[in-house]
Amino acid sequence: MKFVIQRDQLMESVQHVMKAISSRTTIPILTGMKLEVSEAGLKLTGSDSDISIESFIPAEEDGLVYVENIEPGSIVLQAKYFPDIVRKLPQNTVEILTDDHRNVTIRSGNAEFHLNGQDAEEYPQLPKLHTEDSFELPIDLLKELIRQTVFAVSSSETRPILTGVNVKIQDGELHFIATDSHRLASRKLPLQESGGSLAFDNVVIPGKSLTELNKILSDSDDTIEINVTDNQILFRTKHLYFLSRLLDGNYPETSRLIPDESKTIVKMDTKELLQSIDRASLLARENRNNVVRLITKGGNQIEINGNSPEVGNVVEEVEAASIEGEELKISFSAKYMMDALKAVGTDQVKVEFTGAMRPFLIRPIEDEQILQLILPVRTY
Amino acid sequence: MKFVIQRDQLMESVQHVMKAISSRTTIPILTGMKLEVSEAGLKLTGSDSDISIESFIPAEEDGLVYVENIEPGSIVLQAKYFPDIVRKLPQNTVEILTDDHRNVTIRSGNAEFHLNGQDAEEYPQLPKLHTEDSFELPIDLLKELIRQTVFAVSSSETRPILTGVNVKIQDGELHFIATDSHRLASRKLPLQESGGSLAFDNVVIPGKSLTELNKILSDSDDTIEINVTDNQILFRTKHLYFLSRLLDGNYPETSRLIPDESKTIVKMDTKELLQSIDRASLLARENRNNVVRLITKGGNQIEINGNSPEVGNVVEEVEAASIEGEELKISFSAKYMMDALKAVGTDQVKVEFTGAMRPFLIRPIEDEQILQLILPVRTY
Repeated sequence: MKFVIQRDQLMESVQHVMKAISSRTTIPILTGMKLEVSEAGLKLTGSDSDISIESFIPAEEDGLVYVENIEPGSIVLQAKYFPDIVRKLPQNTVEILTDDHRNVTIRSGNAEFHLNGQDAEEYPQLPKLHTEDSFELPIDLLKELIRQTVFAVSSSETRPILTGVNVKIQDGELHFIATDSHRLASRKLPLQESGGSLAFDNVVIPGKSLTELNKILSDSDDTIEINVTDNQILFRTKHLYFLSRLLDGNYPETSRLIPDESKTIVKMDTKELLQSIDRASLLARENRNNVVRLITKGGNQIEINGNSPEVGNVVEEVEAASIEGEELKISFSAKYMMDALKAVGTDQVKVEFTGAMRPFLIRPIEDEQILQLILPVRTY
Repeated sequence: MKFVIQRDQLMESVQHVMKAISSRTTIPILTGMKLEVSEAGLKLTGSDSDISIESFIPAEEDGLVYVENIEPGSIVLQAKYFPDIVRKLPQNTVEILTDDHRNVTIRSGNAEFHLNGQDAEEYPQLPKLHTEDSFELPIDLLKELIRQTVFAVSSSETRPILTGVNVKIQDGELHFIATDSHRLASRKLPLQESGGSLAFDNVVIPGKSLTELNKILSDSDDTIEINVTDNQILFRTKHLYFLSRLLDGNYPETSRLIPDESKTIVKMDTKELLQSIDRASLLARENRNNVVRLITKGGNQIEINGNSPEVGNVVEEVEAASIEGEELKISFSAKYMMDALKAVGTDQVKVEFTGAMRPFLIRPIEDEQILQLILPVRTY
């Protein structure tokens, strides 16, 4: 194997692929990164068996040459050292070659690294998805769907299915749902008319996979193609192939959790509410749940307060745009509320309460596609 | 106690004073921050008994009003919460007041915090230094002296005296020395003619104190005043008072460690040498000392290499500006060498060797004031 490549392109691909590589895997060869070069270009592969990532650097694209002097071949390199080596190479041109004993030479300027490689034949084959059914989304939108839901997955393995995001296609809408049973985040997106039948109707994607995918994808209005089989999902862009296992089991039906009526509706500036809850939470940290309280007052005022008997308390009146319905005193997790307000992402927000003991909803004022739900904390 | 203050000024002072406050102190009241307000302004104090810091915000300076509506008084606030509270206040104007029961109210915009304060009378009095002897330095220069030496103090308590920087005044020069017995960093500075006798001739300042002082001081050609007594040193700027204890005991005489002749002299570009050692160290991490090797070659070339049998090796030839004297193969800690090269800070550097087993010197080509010494590692 032999090729010459531009360091900056190599570095970007290495960083993407590293997102799938863990030093704590039980399969030793998966601590390495696979390099495969052909006349078409260089393919890097990393996997921790839950997530597999392939990044491709074409030999030539749009008239620019990225990889040259190619002698096809493949090798596995220890991922612990390779990224630092690439980052610190003295020149932007890098030559990588192997001999018959899997000794790898990396050469740039006057620096020459010799690494012990491993046999690429021993690297597990990534499953190829056999499906014609796929659909496409703009990358920007996929990132938004992930960002607005994934934070609400459960971090506990007590109910493993809740560590994933439930992705459904129903009534022409794509629907992302995440819940840890104390709060729920939901985002719908109308799908374009698609020619054939869609690829799936209900899967659960590990939250960690979506978080890593979101980190790798840069904001762009290019599209990403999504393929699903029984137990895997594939996200594919021009040069990236991101494969994740799916979670086994049935995701709970969450629609019945969402109250269909409300008794108190508060509309207000998202940032003002967020910042006052942030301040109240400063003195609510001592009790582990970080609970703050919201009280409706006369004249469109709401009071936010936090209390930590050992330290002190904080109280703040904030002006709402409007308050309709019954008076209310309610307590909830400051962290959940701040996560939800950040996810909503609009300047103004509508919070719909159905009494101090019932879940409440946070959503944009004029948009039914985003919905955040939080269970209050019983303090009265 | 009562006053109104600008948040940004308060925040800056709080951050300075926090550098002295530790949550792990054995004296409970020292987990707090003392606030004392008089007609002159607000003084904040923090201390972990090794370091004490006072920061003063004048009521008025250069025609600008920083503190107003003053009712003199003092209180101690829990330092765990106070900085976050100040940072997150909604407005730039902050009112702080106490009642007779040491309840503290912090008010800004519509937000109101109530904290339990502690009696300022219980806060230890900082020692006042009784000395007329002091000298002044530009802040920039003091920061440079610290930066060029403090990294070389010992991190081990085996010989506590080596955890400090030895500061001497000798032959009209100020001299900073630090060593952990494997390497030594030394910086001299000619002092201006001073009127009276100088304040001290030989003290040892804890490395941690100098590191914190360096963080607090911003680059400036203003001067800082330095006072020393038997067991304390005081650094004083216009609004900052930084007091540190001194280390007890005699600092070893280090001058005999410095070879007065050399057998091989290499002059070269500092950054090129630094970067090639950085690359070589990538594959030298496995052996815990992170040892790299330097070999002189013909024609002004030096070879830098690093080797980690399990993983591989790296070798690089770098062109020196000149190599004089005997041929040499020598091994040393990559970390120590990189620290020393960064401290020297000039574009070109001179490295003087006296054989593979003797300490070697790194310094600027035309400057005897900065000197870095490293003991080689025995590998041949």
